[in-house]
Amino acid sequence: MLNLQSSSSERWLEQVQQHLPEILIDHAHCEKKAAGTALNLIFAYTEQIELCREMSAIVREEIEHFELVLDLLDRRGIKFRRLPPSNYGRQLSELIDKQEPQKAVDRLLVAGLIEARSCERFGLLRDHLSDRELADFYGSLFESEARHHSTYVRLAKLFAAEDVVHRRLHQLSTAEAAIIAVGDTLPRMHS
Amino acid sequence: MLNLQSSSSERWLEQVQQHLPEILIDHAHCEKKAAGTALNLIFAYTEQIELCREMSAIVREEIEHFELVLDLLDRRGIKFRRLPPSNYGRQLSELIDKQEPQKAVDRLLVAGLIEARSCERFGLLRDHLSDRELADFYGSLFESEARHHSTYVRLAKLFAAEDVVHRRLHQLSTAEAAIIAVGDTLPRMHS
Repeated sequence: MLNLQSSSSERWLEQVQQHLPEILIDHAHCEKKAAGTALNLIFAYTEQIELCREMSAIVREEIEHFELVLDLLDRRGIKFRRLPPSNYGRQLSELIDKQEPQKAVDRLLVAGLIEARSCERFGLLRDHLSDRELADFYGSLFESEARHHSTYVRLAKLFAAEDVVHRRLHQLSTAEAAIIAVGDTLPRMHS
Repeated sequence: MLNLQSSSSERWLEQVQQHLPEILIDHAHCEKKAAGTALNLIFAYTEQIELCREMSAIVREEIEHFELVLDLLDRRGIKFRRLPPSNYGRQLSELIDKQEPQKAVDRLLVAGLIEARSCERFGLLRDHLSDRELADFYGSLFESEARHHSTYVRLAKLFAAEDVVHRRLHQLSTAEAAIIAVGDTLPRMHS
């Protein structure tokens, strides 16, 4: 369903346990960035009304999640602050084709893979965190990330034939698995 | 309340009457741009938690308005499409100081003045359009634009003393009135 080619390692869960406040702050940034990605796609592909409507709904959901994470930080006395991002997003962005319409396909599939990885990791947090409030919180976000993944993959088919999209998705998810296997020394949602 | 130094002229209402579909399409773009402006401010001033929360709420409202305008276009059989923007936003952006913290003050006040002008014009549309559905629609959006204006002016005071903010607001609203007096040959929400 999520089109991922790997599962997250124990290494990441250990990073999470050791740096939980930083992971939570990074999560807020991820939600904000996800809203930005969806909004940028409306600006770029205005003529595709289905895309505009789906992206608009995603902007709303991501910004609501951003607010939920800010609330969580607030309850825990953690100050929201700027953080250097992990390399994950930048490395995936570098794979995006420069030419349309392949660029549109790639932008949508990369956004979809980020949602898929978030989904997979939210599932791990739900199952492994001993902090019940946090475990429940990540459980509650799991479904929307999975749904966003499906939306992005479906919208990619507005710009290329189904088989082309699925071939490209396989290529990009292979690359994504390689990036996530290397990980990042910074403790992040996608390290 | 709106800190505007002029009222819109008859010329603009005549443009509206003659190019209503194009004005409605431009309105959808304005809501999308307003969401983008608020989101960009979160990215730029992450450490200001009050700003993050207020901007997040504005992103949600603007993107909901964007969807409402798309629904309206849809009911009227008007296709949402790319439009060259009026010069209004660009001319106002050119007034923004390049140096922080004045830049933050200016970004917030310019965003606030755009909301104020939208509010004033939505009021005119509410009062002058013979199309009752549209008149009611603009009446329903009036209050949120006024509220957003106040929010932006209040947030500017996070970055400068109250008297500095009010002096700068007066300068910028003088410039805004001059820009809107010239108008634009393109029929737009801010022409």
